[in-house]
This record gives sequence, C-alpha cells and structure tokens, in this order.
Amino acid sequence: MIRRLCVIGVGLIGGSLARALRVVGAVETIVGCGRGEKNLARARELNVIDEYMLDPADAVEGADIVVVAAVLGATPGIFEKIASGIGSKTVVTDVGSAKRCVVDAARRSFGGKFSQFVPGHPIAGTEKSGVEASFPELFRDHRVILTPVTETDPRALGRVTEMWQLTGATVTEMDVGHHDEVLAATSHLPHMLAYALVDCLASMEGENENFAYAAGGFRDFTRIASSSPAMWCDIAMANRDALLLMLDRFTATYEQLRTALESNNKDVLFEMFSRAKTARDRAGLPVTK
Amino acid sequence: MIRRLCVIGVGLIGGSLARALRVVGAVETIVGCGRGEKNLARARELNVIDEYMLDPADAVEGADIVVVAAVLGATPGIFEKIASGIGSKTVVTDVGSAKRCVVDAARRSFGGKFSQFVPGHPIAGTEKSGVEASFPELFRDHRVILTPVTETDPRALGRVTEMWQLTGATVTEMDVGHHDEVLAATSHLPHMLAYALVDCLASMEGENENFAYAAGGFRDFTRIASSSPAMWCDIAMANRDALLLMLDRFTATYEQLRTALESNNKDVLFEMFSRAKTARDRAGLPVTK
Repeated sequence: MIRRLCVIGVGLIGGSLARALRVVGAVETIVGCGRGEKNLARARELNVIDEYMLDPADAVEGADIVVVAAVLGATPGIFEKIASGIGSKTVVTDVGSAKRCVVDAARRSFGGKFSQFVPGHPIAGTEKSGVEASFPELFRDHRVILTPVTETDPRALGRVTEMWQLTGATVTEMDVGHHDEVLAATSHLPHMLAYALVDCLASMEGENENFAYAAGGFRDFTRIASSSPAMWCDIAMANRDALLLMLDRFTATYEQLRTALESNNKDVLFEMFSRAKTARDRAGLPVTK
Repeated sequence: MIRRLCVIGVGLIGGSLARALRVVGAVETIVGCGRGEKNLARARELNVIDEYMLDPADAVEGADIVVVAAVLGATPGIFEKIASGIGSKTVVTDVGSAKRCVVDAARRSFGGKFSQFVPGHPIAGTEKSGVEASFPELFRDHRVILTPVTETDPRALGRVTEMWQLTGATVTEMDVGHHDEVLAATSHLPHMLAYALVDCLASMEGENENFAYAAGGFRDFTRIASSSPAMWCDIAMANRDALLLMLDRFTATYEQLRTALESNNKDVLFEMFSRAKTARDRAGLPVTK
C-alpha cells in the first residue's frame, strides 16, 4: 500500500500510473506536481490526483514514493529541486526513455540518498500526451524495465517493482547501458526514421497530393511522427550516443539496400526483404490491420 | 454489366476485385487464371471465380475485361501471352504499383491493341497475400489511380473507371511519371525503410531481446516489413528510377537529422520533428492506436 504517492508530471504516463494504482486501491493519496497549473487542475477534476502543488520541493514532502514522470530534459532540474525534500524512507523513481543520463543526474543530485532512486522505464505510450489522454490500462501486459545500479537499495527496487506490477505490467531488470542500446534500436531509431520520412515528404512539391494518396501502410508507418516533438527532442538528446550508433548501423543496411537496387541485384534485395519478414513474423508482434 | 471478366492472378487484389464485383451483381462470369492451380481451385471453392484456366491465352478469350493482377515481374510475360487472344472490344487493365514499366511493356506487346489497355493502380492492400486474404470491401473508400496515355481509348478508360467505382473506390487519373513519383514517396520508400530497419535489427546480437522490448510504435512502424518479399522486390525493381531518387531525397533529410543530433543542435531537431508532426496531423490520416 502506498500512503502518499507524488507524481511529478501528470501527463500520459504519470496520469495513467496514478489512475492504474487508484483503480486497484493501492494508494491512499496522490499528489500531483507540474509546471502547468491548468493541466493539474484538470487532473484533479478527473480524479487522477487528489491534490496538487506547483513546487516539486513541497510536493515530495512526506511521500512514500515519488515518480518523476516529466520529460527527460526537465528531469535533472527536478532532481535538483527535490533532493533536499526527500525523506530517508522515500523511494524515488522515474519513467525516462533513456537511462544513462537519468542515472548520472540522480547520482549528482541525490548524493547520499542516491540508493533510494530506482531508474525505471515503462514501455508503453501512444502518440498522444497530456492527462486527458491517460487511462488506467496503459501498462497492462506491457513491460517496465528497471535499471538498478550497484548502489540501489534492494528494498527501494522491491517497492517500485511492486508498484508497476499492480498496474498489470511485467517488470524486468536490465543494465543501464544495455537498456539504452535496446531502446535506441526499437524505439528511438524508428521515431527518427518516421520524422525524417514525413519531413522529407512535407518538403516536396505537391506535399498534399503525396499525403492524399497515402495508404494504410503509410498511415501506420508514420503514426509515431505525430508524437510530441519536444518530448522526442529530449529523448534523442538524452540517448544521443546510443542513438548515433544505431543511426550509423541503419545507414549501413540502408546503403546496402540502395546499392542492391541501383545495381539491379534482385537476389540481395530479396534476401534482405526475406530476412526482415522472417524476423518480424518470428518476433510474434501482433499483426494489426 | 460485365459479361465475362478475366482475372489473371487471383490473389489479394484480383480476388478482392472479383468478390467486390460479384457482391454488387456487376458480373456474369468470372474466369480466373494463374500459375498455381491449387490457389485457383481454392478460389473456385470460395466462389471468388466461376472457372479457371491455366493458360492466359485461353483465359482471355471472349472476355469483356481482362484484369492483370499478377506481380509486376510477371506482368510483361502475361501481356506477351495474351496479346494475340485479345478481341477487338476487350478492355485490358492492370493493378501494378509502378506504371511506367507496365505502360512500356503493354505498348511493346499489344501493338495496335495498345489503345485498349488502361493502366491502373488500386491504392489498397494489406501485408497478407493470396486469395484466402481477399475480401470484397478492400477497395471501399480507397483510391484507384488510372494513368491513361494519349493513345488510350476513352471508352476503355470509361469501362475501367466504372468497374472500380462499383467496388466503392474513388477513381482519379494521373500522369504515368507523376504516379510513379508519388508512389515512390508514400509507399515504396516507407517499405524500403521498414525492411532495412528490421533487417538491421535482425542482424544485431540479441535480436530476440530487441523485438521482445518493442512497443506498439515499433509494431505499427514495421508492419509493412511483413509484406511479401517477392512482390516488393518486383515493385522496387519496377519503379527503380523514381525510387532511387526518393531514397536520395530521404538520405538528405536523414543526414540533416543526424548532423543536428551529433552537433547537439536541439533547435534544428525540434524544427524537423515539428514540421513532420504538423504535416502528418494536417494530412488527416486516421490516427490508429
């Protein structure tokens, strides 16, 4: 049971977590915090949170668990602000899509309380944002990756694990660096490709016509290009090193494909397409229409 | 009313067209033709076609409309085989995703009957293939692009337009070259990116782990990488020139993004992402979950 949960950043992720914990009756009081008072007032109206405070230092006071669910770029600043207010038994966690930069920032800000911090990342989301888009089932049957380091207090890790399990998520642990590589590959790189593709098409003459003739494949392929630009700027910057490596890996495969096409090498093209289809079909990802 | 419709290649597209025309009672007899007798027998069993023939030359005999719905690579060979059997009033059309190569092949094969050929392309499909995957609603509210040339008989164009309208599709006309550019941008390039991304990830160590942590964004982004490798090899080769141009356009945008990330230029990154989001949201593509 969480007596007092503090959610800093009551958007899609923070709001959905609050809703999910409330639905299962796992939390007594939820205090929200964020920069936009209008969003916080709406969150209270929707009963996602019980009360709100605008200053993170005030908001964390007396909390059992503090979840920093702000955008990555704002996270280090929030850590700085809450560090002194964190009690000796308070557990702090985050939801950032890159973990190395968050762990570094937490180590810098929390000092002796760094062991109370559990780096976390729920693999869930939609292209929408804000508390209005939040819903309690967001994490059900999704994965949450926790990336504890040697200093992390096992009891803190246990509390955060339990919290996420209550939302219906499957919790797994991973090394910080490995997390950042896996996410660069499966999430950050695809977002860069989708943004680059749509930006490329939008810069062409007859842009509107391009989009008018787009079929379902294009719609699904580019859905993630509707995600929040600010959030994705943050993520790209926060996971810059791992992402640059993945961008280069992709370039190598892309160049191979281009060369095969240019030189009419149908065999290489067929091999690449077949390997990709096999890998994707084997991955057991649900096939949507 | 179509007295006798001949569909060469009774797969997802050919099968769905046959089903759609049958549902609205627009056709008396549908004769199927293809290389796989098993698939044709199944199509007859499913009542998608009334009869089948294995030789295209026989199949077109006495047909009002012949629809060549085979893969692009097989289309020129089929044109060669059916050319002599086409009656003076028979209208021939196709469904190929690239039109320049099809128009060139038709001009070569049909000679004096070239005016009876109407190049067509329904913008519809799923990642599945085969007659089992076909369904009569596939074209409803989708676009069909026809790319008539100066020689095309207006009456032939009219018959093909009417046929597609009966399936619930919206028919528009476009210049051959322009069609190939638009499709390279909105369909062929995205497929290349999806195949390259999945092939890239599949070649990495820990491939399975990569896919295990993939979220909904990745699933939707890579859906098209489950499409038929043979079909997409054909399409890429058939629209090679326009596609190579688009690949290079994409590379330019992608390099711009990479440079912005590498040089920590958050402003440029934010601008690119924002332009993309704006363009995609404005395009009015349905937002799927």
